[in-house]
Amino acid sequence: MRGRPYIAVVGPSASTPSEHSLGEAVGRLLAEAGAVLVCGGLGGTMEAAASGCTKAGGTAIGILPTELRADANAFVTVAVATGMGEARNVIVVRTADAVIAIGGEFGTLSEIALALKTGKPVVGLGTWELHKQGRAAGDPIVRAETPEEAVQTALELANTGR
Amino acid sequence: MRGRPYIAVVGPSASTPSEHSLGEAVGRLLAEAGAVLVCGGLGGTMEAAASGCTKAGGTAIGILPTELRADANAFVTVAVATGMGEARNVIVVRTADAVIAIGGEFGTLSEIALALKTGKPVVGLGTWELHKQGRAAGDPIVRAETPEEAVQTALELANTGR
Amino acid sequence: MRGRPYIAVVGPSASTPSEHSLGEAVGRLLAEAGAVLVCGGLGGTMEAAASGCTKAGGTAIGILPTELRADANAFVTVAVATGMGEARNVIVVRTADAVIAIGGEFGTLSEIALALKTGKPVVGLGTWELHKQGRAAGDPIVRAETPEEAVQTALELANTGR
Amino acid sequence: MRGRPYIAVVGPSASTPSEHSLGEAVGRLLAEAGAVLVCGGLGGTMEAAASGCTKAGGTAIGILPTELRADANAFVTVAVATGMGEARNVIVVRTADAVIAIGGEFGTLSEIALALKTGKPVVGLGTWELHKQGRAAGDPIVRAETPEEAVQTALELANTGR
Repeated sequence: MRGRPYIAVVGPSASTPSEHSLGEAVGRLLAEAGAVLVCGGLGGTMEAAASGCTKAGGTAIGILPTELRADANAFVTVAVATGMGEARNVIVVRTADAVIAIGGEFGTLSEIALALKTGKPVVGLGTWELHKQGRAAGDPIVRAETPEEAVQTALELANTGR
Repeated sequence: MRGRPYIAVVGPSASTPSEHSLGEAVGRLLAEAGAVLVCGGLGGTMEAAASGCTKAGGTAIGILPTELRADANAFVTVAVATGMGEARNVIVVRTADAVIAIGGEFGTLSEIALALKTGKPVVGLGTWELHKQGRAAGDPIVRAETPEEAVQTALELANTGR
Repeated sequence: MRGRPYIAVVGPSASTPSEHSLGEAVGRLLAEAGAVLVCGGLGGTMEAAASGCTKAGGTAIGILPTELRADANAFVTVAVATGMGEARNVIVVRTADAVIAIGGEFGTLSEIALALKTGKPVVGLGTWELHKQGRAAGDPIVRAETPEEAVQTALELANTGR
Repeated sequence: MRGRPYIAVVGPSASTPSEHSLGEAVGRLLAEAGAVLVCGGLGGTMEAAASGCTKAGGTAIGILPTELRADANAFVTVAVATGMGEARNVIVVRTADAVIAIGGEFGTLSEIALALKTGKPVVGLGTWELHKQGRAAGDPIVRAETPEEAVQTALELANTGR
């Protein structure tokens, strides 16, 4: 996998049908583009992305909060068991060259924030909007409308980012 | 410190004068209320809160991202060196019964998100506003206008929270 | 606590009566010497050391593997909840200037090894003996026969160590 | 990789020529047996094992202490950047079904201890010998004389272990 971009896909473990479809499409497109998928290894959006990725012949790394590789969803090709709970979110982000955030609950928000904190580009598909009181800050998340646009943008930013 | 509430104060390491004043007042009020302050141990808002706390006779725990206790600001009374970088944000949140977020950059946002993910109340003083596209979600952050209100709210939520 | 030495006491959670007595004496002597005790926060040797320390008026930091401060033994004065399982052993060692190892099972051995790896002096009271096949390596653990000798040696090495 | 055993190979980053040869042979034999190699991702024994593994067509996961995937040796096929220093040793062990320890310095000793603590079988090739004062404890490390014996034993223990 040397030289390939690693792209993290983060999203809720309890995903809506729409988020599930987006995750699966993003996973498939990443595999077709030769990228490695990094995810949190569990269900919902993580499983959808891993499913799309591996069905298209790609590699899906699942970095688990638990102590057991067996907790990974059925589509992860490489499972890493951290036993560190939410601290694994930091590892998902560190391991990726860019992050695609889909929908999202608070765990997703933490991964968006950790990515922005550590200088990783974040592309959003229907995810959090961040504002700060009294500051006209630009949006730190690059917005995409479709899985195709999200993957293309993430790969471009990953390629130029470092 | 057994039985005392532990309240985390999170905010930018490069704080504005206004954020610095808020941090110092919050730290002082926490000490006066008998609470233990938890912070990230470095400068800016963390240092302001620790300063206010220890000058009022309180205990300020600094949980550092680096490997050296000596990296703690001068006002921390108990320093913990994790050597784990941003993963220490998880420990700051896990150790606290409630979180007060002041201003904030992306690291602060990650601590807000990790707190919300793990069920810890978050009180905000001029911090991030969170919205999600197409959802009329209520604000998950309890807003305060003054240090007094922030500390009182955090202590109430911490007491009733578990 | 600024300027005071931080000394970790590591040992089994299921301690023998002898190990318990050693732990309590070491904790008491550390407090009397003005040192801060760092331990894993749970039972057995950790509880014995924290008990000896706080009964003598000292500060005992308990760095827990679990997510809940309430899991700390009753004698810890400052509890830190990591939620990171055995990875908290790294934090115990990083936070200390020297380590005193009493008896010990495999968790204790990991803390001895992590201390030696990161350049922290290790003083042993009836703990592991380490040999390597085909190498006449000197013992990397400084052996003590009594709690008094262990504490004095740890403080000397901590003072001169950095 | 689902259903395949994951075997960690741990050993010094500054390996002797003999340790390097052992690491390369163990990596090759693991790949030939269809196992996934888990290692710390850096040089020395880790690089030797990854080299042997990937030259034989296997998968070598490198779990790095640093923040950058680029720090991985050239033979790792999947790199994970933790940014957590020595705490990554816990993840190496958690991710594996059994551990093969070659030679070894203190970092290796920590991985042996963490594996034994968490119930993972450890097979040793010229590595640490562990004794405890006053206890006739059996050797917790299963000794092997050759790479072939080490790999066969690790796979047997991994298969029967859980």
